[in-house]
Amino acid sequence: MNTPRPTTGRVKEVTSLTNPIVKDIRLLEKKRHRDETGTFLAEGMKLIIDALDNGWTIRTLVYSKAGKGNDSVEKLAARCLAGGADILIVSEKVLGAIARRDNPQMVMGVFEQRWSRPDAIRPEDGDVWVALDRIRDPGNLGTIIRTVDAVGAKGVVLIGQTTDPFATETVRATMGSIFAVPLARMEENAFVGFAGMWPGMVAGTHLKGAVDYRKPDYASGPVLLVMGNEQAGLTDALAGACNVLIRIPQAGRADSLNLAIATGVSLFEIRRSALTLGEDELGEDEKA
Amino acid sequence: MNTPRPTTGRVKEVTSLTNPIVKDIRLLEKKRHRDETGTFLAEGMKLIIDALDNGWTIRTLVYSKAGKGNDSVEKLAARCLAGGADILIVSEKVLGAIARRDNPQMVMGVFEQRWSRPDAIRPEDGDVWVALDRIRDPGNLGTIIRTVDAVGAKGVVLIGQTTDPFATETVRATMGSIFAVPLARMEENAFVGFAGMWPGMVAGTHLKGAVDYRKPDYASGPVLLVMGNEQAGLTDALAGACNVLIRIPQAGRADSLNLAIATGVSLFEIRRSALTLGEDELGEDEKA
Repeated sequence: MNTPRPTTGRVKEVTSLTNPIVKDIRLLEKKRHRDETGTFLAEGMKLIIDALDNGWTIRTLVYSKAGKGNDSVEKLAARCLAGGADILIVSEKVLGAIARRDNPQMVMGVFEQRWSRPDAIRPEDGDVWVALDRIRDPGNLGTIIRTVDAVGAKGVVLIGQTTDPFATETVRATMGSIFAVPLARMEENAFVGFAGMWPGMVAGTHLKGAVDYRKPDYASGPVLLVMGNEQAGLTDALAGACNVLIRIPQAGRADSLNLAIATGVSLFEIRRSALTLGEDELGEDEKA
Repeated sequence: MNTPRPTTGRVKEVTSLTNPIVKDIRLLEKKRHRDETGTFLAEGMKLIIDALDNGWTIRTLVYSKAGKGNDSVEKLAARCLAGGADILIVSEKVLGAIARRDNPQMVMGVFEQRWSRPDAIRPEDGDVWVALDRIRDPGNLGTIIRTVDAVGAKGVVLIGQTTDPFATETVRATMGSIFAVPLARMEENAFVGFAGMWPGMVAGTHLKGAVDYRKPDYASGPVLLVMGNEQAGLTDALAGACNVLIRIPQAGRADSLNLAIATGVSLFEIRRSALTLGEDELGEDEKA
């Protein structure tokens, strides 16, 4: 454990599912093993290059034998090796077993997890953060992280016991945004304190929210959007930590929105004035 | 096959997984069996009552022995029986096997599928329909059907080979909206004809769309929103069938929105003027 890591990694070819390194990587399916090692699995060449460009640390690069001789794979491998990562060249069978699905990506990486320290979050005017209370569904969390990235919000706070953002299913659903969106975590009590210090609007979506989500002036300072979980909505403590309770009008039955949809619709509203098509916009037919 | 159905159903108690009726219901996991029988599985008391209230036909009501003596379960069973459905009272083990998950709902129902005939769709001013091209992900489809219901849009057209809306995973994701949202299906060619006859805006979301999605005047007629699939976006044929190509501005990388999120954000924009909090709105602090 205290052995210093070599400055360049090692290269190993493996075809057996019983190889201990392969077994170790396959264990990353389990949250406990991810927590203990502080690592997680991400798939896909472009995504891994983006991650490295963003300064993430790769521990092991895994690719199939089919990648040998492929210029971009070998270039990536050399880069990882020089940075101290190990390279694992595996059979198709082993690759599929690690990915736990058919037709896996040719390249996978074991990365170190990253969490933002709550006290390092220093919101400025125009910044938007999303806080998610005990979110349970991996697909919802992945989709929300992806949407936070898409609207240019700054990060996500996970409150209490949530589904793990570094689960492979969640990482997949982020489509690479896991490497672009800072994540912090805190217990409910700590979050109430954090929200109390927030230098701007703390907006909770609530079924009893009296304010149409399109009414607040989101542009005047940093916004913290607080979303309750899939089952219960916001707790009283969290609702109390908000300085405005908003609601999305719906035509059908009450509470008929999926959590990721409600978060997405709210985020696009909060960022409404900041998001434009930019220079390539042709601007025809401006009826509305 | 030609035997007339009895006017009231039969009641049967089953504890064995090898019982042919149970095996038949469990086969509804497979699309082929759903197609052949024209049925599907839905779970939960409230949802089943809503379905019956909306005129859906239940073939078999399944509930666990624990439901015997439960007033609302027995009332529901009597209603189904009178309507000609069979009642299957099963052990917890069988119930879990049918639901294919732990802690299943106490009540499940086998319903007849329903498809709207394309020529029965007669759009009026203010109506919104969503067309989905070869959508692949069951969770996305379920979430979109749920969102269509939430915004008060009128229905969904499935274009080409799509994931099955009557798959149990999809039905679950709709949270009951499968019984509230009309579904139609057509091949791409037929859809192009359908779109050509549409008496209003046919808006496709497209990465090359030149029009900000917030610009068109959606309120002036029926709107048909056309969404490409998860991998490829709109085909040229479908893009050509649209009379406006819209785009949702994004801050991050291009095309970084999940399909259900993009559909949800578009739908809330299209229905923006129609959706209000209504009478219970308190209307404070109208800054924006």
